[in-house]
Amino acid sequence: MAKIAQETGFVEDSSQLTDWIRRVTFELAKMKVKRAVEKRDLMVAQAIQTIDDLDKTANLFMGRLREWYGLHFPELDRLVEKHETYARLVSELGERKNFTVENLKNEGVPAKKAAKIAEAASASMGAELAAEDLEQIRTLSKRILELYDLRKRFEAYVDTVMEEVAPNVKALVGSLLGARLIALAGGLQNLAKMPASTIQVLGAEKALFRS
Amino acid sequence: MAKIAQETGFVEDSSQLTDWIRRVTFELAKMKVKRAVEKRDLMVAQAIQTIDDLDKTANLFMGRLREWYGLHFPELDRLVEKHETYARLVSELGERKNFTVENLKNEGVPAKKAAKIAEAASASMGAELAAEDLEQIRTLSKRILELYDLRKRFEAYVDTVMEEVAPNVKALVGSLLGARLIALAGGLQNLAKMPASTIQVLGAEKALFRS
Repeated sequence: MAKIAQETGFVEDSSQLTDWIRRVTFELAKMKVKRAVEKRDLMVAQAIQTIDDLDKTANLFMGRLREWYGLHFPELDRLVEKHETYARLVSELGERKNFTVENLKNEGVPAKKAAKIAEAASASMGAELAAEDLEQIRTLSKRILELYDLRKRFEAYVDTVMEEVAPNVKALVGSLLGARLIALAGGLQNLAKMPASTIQVLGAEKALFRS
Repeated sequence: MAKIAQETGFVEDSSQLTDWIRRVTFELAKMKVKRAVEKRDLMVAQAIQTIDDLDKTANLFMGRLREWYGLHFPELDRLVEKHETYARLVSELGERKNFTVENLKNEGVPAKKAAKIAEAASASMGAELAAEDLEQIRTLSKRILELYDLRKRFEAYVDTVMEEVAPNVKALVGSLLGARLIALAGGLQNLAKMPASTIQVLGAEKALFRS
């Protein structure tokens, strides 16, 4: 081949040919590697793991927020159990004295609950807060709300991509659980090749039913 | 006393007086509780713990971001070690092909490093990303940058409040370490009452030199 290449004038000497072959094989190998990772199922796997991270983080910060804001209005912790609502109330209303029935209703709290919270607010034994302290707490609660938004966004994303990547898995177990199966298997192709018994074992892992 | 109160017309009968005494003592107890918690040193303790939470979280998300964006541009992980810079580059530049020497210089990357990164970008073996996938990744990196901002903000806050609450401690060990001591001791008063040997033990705890 080296002879033919030289005769047809494709290269001038054999070292040039070796060089050319090296470059071509290198490019081919690169394309192969690229194709191997060009898979959106890996995107889904990353997204579902990010969702898990977000859950963990939001819980961590919520514990902190409840403790911190609890210095000012300890009674609220018991009265509002839903994390997101708690963060929203703190972020929107701020000081305890703004927890009036009317304000709470505007935030979508049911009338009965609102009355209870307003009563607790007016009788609360928590410490007064300096404006500066309160501002830090409100900033924290705003960031937490953004994390919840991000979670919703990623959920919608996983849903869309799962429809494209693995509609059957999605139809069978739902998009979030399906994505988690793909992440645990290490890719859609791996999952497809697994015998049913292995998938069963995947399903028994603790991480799977976390959400 | 009940007799005098009735004679002066302060109350009409003794049950009313009991009621009044009950209310007054209750209010007094409330005031006492309030005063006990109305302490900004507890604010500082919460803030420093939030800073620790933020560090933990930012590290968790950065690991995820590096892995996720690494599907597209794996070489960047090794080239940019500083978490914040990595997140900023991903958030600002997005696709690998935007990692040109000029763009990188605009982002404040030194010329030599920029050339290295741009070279890696043009030769990268990472997968191509759909616009939608990239957008999720960029959103994640933006949120991470916000967490870093929040950390800086809380640091400044701890610094200000420590100046007010415990200027001596701040002068001796710095505001962040001082705040951590207060948090570990469970308040400034507790810390003040501790013998030196106990503070030494506090200092030996792992959590203290975390940052």
